[in-house]
Amino acid sequence: MSHNTFGHLFRCTTFGESHGPAIGVVIDGCPPGLEIDAAEIKLQLDRRATGKSRHTSQRREKDDVQILSGVFEGRTSGTPIALVIENTDAKSKDYGKIKDQFRPGHADFTYWKKYGLRDYRGGGRASARETAMRVAAGAIARKWLNVNHGIEIQGWLAQLGPIRTDETIHWESIDDNPFFCPDPAKVPQLESFMDALRKSGDSVGARVNVVARNVPAGLGAPIYGKLDADLASAMMGINAAKGVEIGAGFNSVEQNGTQHRDEMTKEGFLSNHAGGILGGISSGQDVFVSTAFKPTSSLRIPCRGLDTDGNEVQVITTGRHDPCVGIRATPIVEAMLALVLIDHVLRHRAQNG
Amino acid sequence: MSHNTFGHLFRCTTFGESHGPAIGVVIDGCPPGLEIDAAEIKLQLDRRATGKSRHTSQRREKDDVQILSGVFEGRTSGTPIALVIENTDAKSKDYGKIKDQFRPGHADFTYWKKYGLRDYRGGGRASARETAMRVAAGAIARKWLNVNHGIEIQGWLAQLGPIRTDETIHWESIDDNPFFCPDPAKVPQLESFMDALRKSGDSVGARVNVVARNVPAGLGAPIYGKLDADLASAMMGINAAKGVEIGAGFNSVEQNGTQHRDEMTKEGFLSNHAGGILGGISSGQDVFVSTAFKPTSSLRIPCRGLDTDGNEVQVITTGRHDPCVGIRATPIVEAMLALVLIDHVLRHRAQNG
Amino acid sequence: MSHNTFGHLFRCTTFGESHGPAIGVVIDGCPPGLEIDAAEIKLQLDRRATGKSRHTSQRREKDDVQILSGVFEGRTSGTPIALVIENTDAKSKDYGKIKDQFRPGHADFTYWKKYGLRDYRGGGRASARETAMRVAAGAIARKWLNVNHGIEIQGWLAQLGPIRTDETIHWESIDDNPFFCPDPAKVPQLESFMDALRKSGDSVGARVNVVARNVPAGLGAPIYGKLDADLASAMMGINAAKGVEIGAGFNSVEQNGTQHRDEMTKEGFLSNHAGGILGGISSGQDVFVSTAFKPTSSLRIPCRGLDTDGNEVQVITTGRHDPCVGIRATPIVEAMLALVLIDHVLRHRAQNG
Amino acid sequence: MSHNTFGHLFRCTTFGESHGPAIGVVIDGCPPGLEIDAAEIKLQLDRRATGKSRHTSQRREKDDVQILSGVFEGRTSGTPIALVIENTDAKSKDYGKIKDQFRPGHADFTYWKKYGLRDYRGGGRASARETAMRVAAGAIARKWLNVNHGIEIQGWLAQLGPIRTDETIHWESIDDNPFFCPDPAKVPQLESFMDALRKSGDSVGARVNVVARNVPAGLGAPIYGKLDADLASAMMGINAAKGVEIGAGFNSVEQNGTQHRDEMTKEGFLSNHAGGILGGISSGQDVFVSTAFKPTSSLRIPCRGLDTDGNEVQVITTGRHDPCVGIRATPIVEAMLALVLIDHVLRHRAQNG
Repeated sequence: MSHNTFGHLFRCTTFGESHGPAIGVVIDGCPPGLEIDAAEIKLQLDRRATGKSRHTSQRREKDDVQILSGVFEGRTSGTPIALVIENTDAKSKDYGKIKDQFRPGHADFTYWKKYGLRDYRGGGRASARETAMRVAAGAIARKWLNVNHGIEIQGWLAQLGPIRTDETIHWESIDDNPFFCPDPAKVPQLESFMDALRKSGDSVGARVNVVARNVPAGLGAPIYGKLDADLASAMMGINAAKGVEIGAGFNSVEQNGTQHRDEMTKEGFLSNHAGGILGGISSGQDVFVSTAFKPTSSLRIPCRGLDTDGNEVQVITTGRHDPCVGIRATPIVEAMLALVLIDHVLRHRAQNG
Repeated sequence: MSHNTFGHLFRCTTFGESHGPAIGVVIDGCPPGLEIDAAEIKLQLDRRATGKSRHTSQRREKDDVQILSGVFEGRTSGTPIALVIENTDAKSKDYGKIKDQFRPGHADFTYWKKYGLRDYRGGGRASARETAMRVAAGAIARKWLNVNHGIEIQGWLAQLGPIRTDETIHWESIDDNPFFCPDPAKVPQLESFMDALRKSGDSVGARVNVVARNVPAGLGAPIYGKLDADLASAMMGINAAKGVEIGAGFNSVEQNGTQHRDEMTKEGFLSNHAGGILGGISSGQDVFVSTAFKPTSSLRIPCRGLDTDGNEVQVITTGRHDPCVGIRATPIVEAMLALVLIDHVLRHRAQNG
Repeated sequence: MSHNTFGHLFRCTTFGESHGPAIGVVIDGCPPGLEIDAAEIKLQLDRRATGKSRHTSQRREKDDVQILSGVFEGRTSGTPIALVIENTDAKSKDYGKIKDQFRPGHADFTYWKKYGLRDYRGGGRASARETAMRVAAGAIARKWLNVNHGIEIQGWLAQLGPIRTDETIHWESIDDNPFFCPDPAKVPQLESFMDALRKSGDSVGARVNVVARNVPAGLGAPIYGKLDADLASAMMGINAAKGVEIGAGFNSVEQNGTQHRDEMTKEGFLSNHAGGILGGISSGQDVFVSTAFKPTSSLRIPCRGLDTDGNEVQVITTGRHDPCVGIRATPIVEAMLALVLIDHVLRHRAQNG
Repeated sequence: MSHNTFGHLFRCTTFGESHGPAIGVVIDGCPPGLEIDAAEIKLQLDRRATGKSRHTSQRREKDDVQILSGVFEGRTSGTPIALVIENTDAKSKDYGKIKDQFRPGHADFTYWKKYGLRDYRGGGRASARETAMRVAAGAIARKWLNVNHGIEIQGWLAQLGPIRTDETIHWESIDDNPFFCPDPAKVPQLESFMDALRKSGDSVGARVNVVARNVPAGLGAPIYGKLDADLASAMMGINAAKGVEIGAGFNSVEQNGTQHRDEMTKEGFLSNHAGGILGGISSGQDVFVSTAFKPTSSLRIPCRGLDTDGNEVQVITTGRHDPCVGIRATPIVEAMLALVLIDHVLRHRAQNG
């Protein structure tokens, strides 16, 4: 079962609500002997943090992560690693007015229908704050993948609303701007766009791409444990995700077989429409995934909604929100890719020694 | 673990290779008391069958399904239901020449890298023939969903190569043509296109959409058991799938929040960009999923490939293949949707009584 | 979930009722490259077979096993291995009279309460016939364990009713008699006892022990994946099992710590009260498990029972039954031990490389 | 997978080492709407606590439990419940001398073989301290079972070393003495025995029984999800457990079928040798389980052992230990029974509505 657990052999169980005392993750199955400390995890958390620029939510969480177990004398011990982050900047009073309202485009209504009650403060469990723990767990996963297999993972903003941002990619620039935009020349355009958007009170969608290099051939499993199926699940399970592509993705629809098939030579594949995965198993090429994020529905612009008694109400969402949730999605997408890959490395060596 | 098992509470474990003695599925967890017989399952299998028109593979399997267990006096008994179909029209000699070759765009290379050996005949386990068992299991799932919740599932071909086919939808016409095209007016165009394609020796991609109606609100689970994440995994796990969208999908990237959020009134939602899922949980709106299928790489047009010794070879794939695998994908996509939904109905009532 | 699936990485899903068309198992996760054929599996099935002596049920099944998938050119391919055995000697008419009765000591009543209907013929799914598939799957597991790790597994009858049978163990004699009795001197006593028992119409319990040698240290996992916990589950899940012990078992209750703890020297442990497992993890000593089997309740001696309408009835069970189900339990216990061990070997190498 | 997770639908993932900063559990799948608070959980924790009498370890942990998530306005919300207890009375310096030694009868050697390193302080993850989190999770499970099904769970000490303690059962007295002894007349004998034992420096085993009343018929699942198999796993997975019995247990070995089978009348079953479970499914009778606990090996009496370099050493274990770990096992056994039952209630209603 997998309600709040991700992965089969490298298993991450997260917990916590946006405005509860803390959020956390228990990682079960991490191989022993990996050097890790809180500071290293914090580096990744800081990449995802809010409040770094005017373009994201102004909630300021320190995200100081505590390691409660599973690390002994600086190395993972093979037992469960529990990481906890206290919530310190939750402003629950912002949410008093939506206590009895269902915000359109949010999980308010569906949690209510599912459970009959909900923690309405800041979205409760449905808040994107949970993704901090994916990034924390992903920090351990990506380090292990890098140390043991040389795998490198890099994500970037590929499109923000109407603006394509990755026609030119400068890998080294991605972390130099708050958008994870790989083309520094596009940053001013993004800033003006976001300034105007914020002023208008509206929000916008985005596309985030990610690649993993040096992935060994043979990861994945036939039929229902396919690497691409697991990646699709991982990415679609991120808050606000609405679409996932592997390799050529939806462009495949209009391609011919002679275009799409990646021919092989002694020097390697001649193209990578497959996105590094054939028959659900990695081919050794770069694994490439693209994810679409919807615009947030948390807007101060009023809209029609219902309250918990079924009456129509005008919904206005104040509080601190990201006008483009895709901006901070890059480290999350990277983390999910790392979590899928480490799980498949462990699965592979279980069956294939 | 989920290598060859799909689902958590309605669990389908499939087995079998394309040219082995038989393929099959064991369904564990089906609620007791459902009336079912082999003929009813066969109806769905026939929709997926090859050899129905000149536009699909000419392999002709009778697909007579045997129920080996779990059905007693015409009703499911709560114990595992084993379904088996013998392979009767496998022509393995077609594959002798690719025994030592890796066909580009196929799983040949990756299975070899994973397992060190492979059943090369007809793609072995990686063959789309396995999907017959998904359709068989799905036939049971969709009947249960319909009898118990009135849920209806309908898929259709939305695009074939450059041809959009669902600008006008005639629901009743979808099963009247071999393409599952919802617009009868487009069928002649599809036929000419496919005739030309077949003559050219090339193949083409497709997009297949599917909708589920009358899905109760509350299905799905937070974080890692999200309904949309499970649908993404289900669809991306179908052979040749390269992309999945829920609701507005990749169109969300350019949408504003005021456009995307589906406002709610007493009469219901005013739009369905969400595709029936909010926060990973069904809202009661139609669940809508779109899947991209790549063009098959099994072409008689030669291409560059490698053999198992690493030498470059010219690969020519003969045998009987679908020039557009998306044509037969509609019943498979419907089956996967049914399998995800029944699993989530059972999961929901476990936790929520 | 694990209703009809055993194991996590070497996963056996069984299906089939006693008097249905067939029984079977799908083994998912078997490492590729193991040489195996139906004859080798049949050797183990024959050890478990009924009808070999007058002391067991006279149902005579050929137990010819078919391999439907997962074995290619004589070796496992890494994909699911489906094994099927047809039921050929079911005499369902024997069961007509108990169609509407709940036999005391049987699963009749509880299946009815669980599912609202039941396949009453021969016990349906609850029949010990299902254990044939465990033995079949176990045959593959034990071969793999032996080829790859030199592990050897041997079970024996330790007690039958009041008769202790393993005060002297002649390993090579165990398979020479239909009781799996390790002391040939005790066989005549067992035969007289069973002859008298059969004549009386009554049944009796038994204790079966099993040992695995050459188990590497380090198998098992902390807390909820302990090797001993998994063995307890495996053995208690065999039909008619009522108790399981590891090592000193219930004798530990009266032991002192100075007696129980197995001291260690350079030459190895000085005793094995632990049964080869410490903290849930194998120590490298012999793994030792003991299982108690209850006497069957299928007797021609009448007893008080209920029918499906709640009326009191006199229940008399005819049909063909084992007067001591423990006699044929030895190969089943061995199989379950093999299945637990292979799963833990795979789990160990997943996390620990 | 289940290394540190127990249960399928009511899933408890525990973490933490004996001398780390904290121990904890994440409970995923708890039905929403249950009233619960920390004080109620603490009541059960106090029953398990050390330091309550001179007969158990003198480590004094306050065991103040914090609820970090999943409870909103006093009720469970359906999202994961994280419980954490800080370790406040760990005395790690006691363990400095065994840093490089393997204590016979402990997990020291096997953890080392498994992971290549270990947290030696207080047994690390293998410490019985982990069981506090089982009791905490069990407190929630048993409340839910009681509120929703009237199920009552009661365990007791049945034997301590040579002393049988439950020939006469006074249910109301069980919690009145530190032994969970159901016969107040036996308490003085237990006290003298334990005083002498402590003085001698040795330890002793025990047997703990537990019963659940008002368990509805129909819980459990065929074959590999049997209620008795899951109970066997649950109990054998408790630290120091070496044997598990259901109902008549090992006494079944010498029983005849006419003795063992529980006849049924309109007034109910006439006996309960089955222990409330037939064919792996509950019958509505009391569920009865008995567990054997070995004597602890942590003794100040020296014994022969090895160090991490393979040299023979004299091992003397100081620190604070329970001379009979079975004394505090009663609340743990009750908790495990509650956890198995709630999981099976949820599993049952998933499949059977």
